[in-house]
Amino acid sequence: MADPRFYDTPLPLTLKDLADLTQAEMRGDAEAIFTDVAPLEAAGHDHVSFLDNRRYTDAFRASKAGACIVSPDMEKKAPAGMALLLTDDPYRGYARVAHAFYPPPPSTAVSTQAVIDETASLGPDCLVGPGAVIGPGAEIGRRCRIGAHSVIGAGVVLGDDCLIGPSASLAYALVGKGVIIHAGACIGQDGFGFAPGAQGHLKVPQLGRVIIGDDVEIGANTTIDRGSGPDTVIGAGAKIDNLVQIAHNVRIGQGCMMAAHVGISGSTTIGDFAMIGGQVGFAGHLQIGDGVRIAAQSGLMRDVESGMTVGGSPAVPMRQFLRGVARLERMGMKKGG
Amino acid sequence: MADPRFYDTPLPLTLKDLADLTQAEMRGDAEAIFTDVAPLEAAGHDHVSFLDNRRYTDAFRASKAGACIVSPDMEKKAPAGMALLLTDDPYRGYARVAHAFYPPPPSTAVSTQAVIDETASLGPDCLVGPGAVIGPGAEIGRRCRIGAHSVIGAGVVLGDDCLIGPSASLAYALVGKGVIIHAGACIGQDGFGFAPGAQGHLKVPQLGRVIIGDDVEIGANTTIDRGSGPDTVIGAGAKIDNLVQIAHNVRIGQGCMMAAHVGISGSTTIGDFAMIGGQVGFAGHLQIGDGVRIAAQSGLMRDVESGMTVGGSPAVPMRQFLRGVARLERMGMKKGG
Amino acid sequence: MADPRFYDTPLPLTLKDLADLTQAEMRGDAEAIFTDVAPLEAAGHDHVSFLDNRRYTDAFRASKAGACIVSPDMEKKAPAGMALLLTDDPYRGYARVAHAFYPPPPSTAVSTQAVIDETASLGPDCLVGPGAVIGPGAEIGRRCRIGAHSVIGAGVVLGDDCLIGPSASLAYALVGKGVIIHAGACIGQDGFGFAPGAQGHLKVPQLGRVIIGDDVEIGANTTIDRGSGPDTVIGAGAKIDNLVQIAHNVRIGQGCMMAAHVGISGSTTIGDFAMIGGQVGFAGHLQIGDGVRIAAQSGLMRDVESGMTVGGSPAVPMRQFLRGVARLERMGMKKGG
Repeated sequence: MADPRFYDTPLPLTLKDLADLTQAEMRGDAEAIFTDVAPLEAAGHDHVSFLDNRRYTDAFRASKAGACIVSPDMEKKAPAGMALLLTDDPYRGYARVAHAFYPPPPSTAVSTQAVIDETASLGPDCLVGPGAVIGPGAEIGRRCRIGAHSVIGAGVVLGDDCLIGPSASLAYALVGKGVIIHAGACIGQDGFGFAPGAQGHLKVPQLGRVIIGDDVEIGANTTIDRGSGPDTVIGAGAKIDNLVQIAHNVRIGQGCMMAAHVGISGSTTIGDFAMIGGQVGFAGHLQIGDGVRIAAQSGLMRDVESGMTVGGSPAVPMRQFLRGVARLERMGMKKGG
Repeated sequence: MADPRFYDTPLPLTLKDLADLTQAEMRGDAEAIFTDVAPLEAAGHDHVSFLDNRRYTDAFRASKAGACIVSPDMEKKAPAGMALLLTDDPYRGYARVAHAFYPPPPSTAVSTQAVIDETASLGPDCLVGPGAVIGPGAEIGRRCRIGAHSVIGAGVVLGDDCLIGPSASLAYALVGKGVIIHAGACIGQDGFGFAPGAQGHLKVPQLGRVIIGDDVEIGANTTIDRGSGPDTVIGAGAKIDNLVQIAHNVRIGQGCMMAAHVGISGSTTIGDFAMIGGQVGFAGHLQIGDGVRIAAQSGLMRDVESGMTVGGSPAVPMRQFLRGVARLERMGMKKGG
Repeated sequence: MADPRFYDTPLPLTLKDLADLTQAEMRGDAEAIFTDVAPLEAAGHDHVSFLDNRRYTDAFRASKAGACIVSPDMEKKAPAGMALLLTDDPYRGYARVAHAFYPPPPSTAVSTQAVIDETASLGPDCLVGPGAVIGPGAEIGRRCRIGAHSVIGAGVVLGDDCLIGPSASLAYALVGKGVIIHAGACIGQDGFGFAPGAQGHLKVPQLGRVIIGDDVEIGANTTIDRGSGPDTVIGAGAKIDNLVQIAHNVRIGQGCMMAAHVGISGSTTIGDFAMIGGQVGFAGHLQIGDGVRIAAQSGLMRDVESGMTVGGSPAVPMRQFLRGVARLERMGMKKGG
């Protein structure tokens, strides 16, 4: 299905292969061959599809997909003849199958137009694009892919299997393994630190670093300032969308997810596995607990305890926010005062 | 008027030339010569100005501009001796005249520092800046201008007359004719797709493309993720400002205009000719109709029917939003409870 | 304390040196030697710390720092044996001391991979990174540091001591002395100007410039469009954070500070020393006075007089905003109607 201009033709896989990949229980012919993934409505007899959202149960019943990854309780709703891969997390199963059909391209080469300082070290099997700049003392792990015109500053460390997009810049940063940094992201510039005054705002030297854990993903054109003395820290497994701003000394816990245009002011700490909607803003020096969920466009002015769900600007507990919204809507619908 | 450091001196045009360009009715000497555009207050006898906003009627009455583009009903308010170009859309008329005085520079050359894959094709009369990278199999139309250090990925197609700003990146994208993509824009990186889980969020391969219609303009540092399987689609003639985020599978209709910092979550569809204010956020999977108008900073949580005007976060019909705001303001102004 | 991967080891300074730098009154042995700055909790006997925020008075009392920069009234709370530098602005004092320990690296060199037009001029002692492009007629002052892959367009002027980050782009811009432009910032592209219409939105040529005063700082991936005819102007000493959008013809006063994700629509004017929180949005054509303070996430729809503090969306005077928020919170906490 994927456009061959951009994606290699997938290699076929058997139902047995797919069951092994997804650790799913198999229903159907183990030797049946599948050639691609496809959505329920578009899939044909040699395609693998998935059902994750119950809203699409009708599409599942009507689908012509040869195989489908579904949760076990959907088995009896499957159309006749459809092979099934039964698993409690069909979306994760789909991700594994799609990875198997579309592995990352294996090419490894260092462009002659890259500018790599002689004191930098580069692990084996790296791909380095034209114009990529790798500064003095930088240490790049194995199998990294460094995009065209990205700039890896002096002393920066990248773990194995990192992917750096085109025109991204990294400085004063120690980066773990398997980290993805998309195009145009700016990591490690000095933060917004000034001693303000009527005679001019005096810049305060920023003497810290950015520490990025394993398996972090950082979106396109996102900006992360380095610490002022302490470090700015992004916990392992955190997923950060495009155009996010993370100020100096911020600490993001493990496995956090934050959508685009989030802005986090200096020295705020966010716990593990927080889920943060788009365009949320955080004041500085806040403590946000583990597992906190924050509605899009919220404005955080106070600390939030672990496990809470909040919304609004200023943010309040979600039930309170929704009641306030309902009241306001009713007010707005009345004609009079 | 324009600074000669940056703009070439305009070639003179006669009133007749200007009337032809603007398809306006002419009042004055057809052979009179004009050398530049200028605002009403600053214009002299050899300058062309325009009046589009009635707020500036006094400036029009007092202006020393040699000629002015105005709507027909303003004719009798013109100062004596001012030539007039009468048209129902003076701002459009001004745009055409300014284009005629300041045409885009004709230079075409391919920098020896550009890095163009031997399997890429490049139409005639292109300008390619230093460091521009054009990947394998890319197809660039005629008269394109490709900025310094921009990165055009493998297989990307650009129609004729496209303009790509410095350090922009495009991947997995099919782009129409006359498209402008400003500096630093990131188009086609893989979107924010994960199968979340306590043991780590698993990345879901993104197998779609970005399809951009003719005459689209995309602002500086704007980010557009490619589709996850379906495509991300930007309709012909859409105008997208700086720092906008468009997630995977979003579909933007023709002629939409959206201001800076708008964020659109995955799989949301926006109809034709919608007008979207700055910092508006959209939840995922919404259907926004044709011609919808959305106030700045609104938060869209539900579908919106064609033709509606909405505001607020969560967004409601505009009249309801304004009433709610008025109530809230009155409440805020009262001292007591 | 700073990581030697990224920062040179500081040269030692005496208490007398530090007192001269900070113009502080000295308490202690003028010849005592200090080797670094450090926070109150982490500092040892040869470190200099500072106390700016009364919240940290306990940390000050317990600190093992050899010297501390504090306001005179804290003198009697200092632990025994701590040298003191007494000044009314301890944070500014700290900034000066940190600058002295960590001066910017003195290196100056022009990369052989830079692409400098033969008609451009470059002052002495500049550092130009690999891939930096400097266009025809550009004039670069003394001691400028131009980052890798930054693109300085034709005719652009940079004053002395400017710092341009990697992959930043400047066009149609006149820049003062001591200006810092961070990585990925896009300055001078043409603004969002269209004559809208059902048959297509016609682009209006943008014929102005961007004028940036001395000592301005512009954050990473921030975008500033050039004027449409008038100029876009950033006053001297203004400090602009990351991912900010400044549209055509905007005028920012001297010494303004604005946090990340602020968006300012076309032709709005902001007075001197305004303080603007993160994610604030401004409609176009507004007049915002001197010294105005604006809470984060506010939406400005009307002019604001000098000296006011405002908040909310739409923004109202701060006291009114806070009362409205309090009412709404109370409403949200009630169960019934």
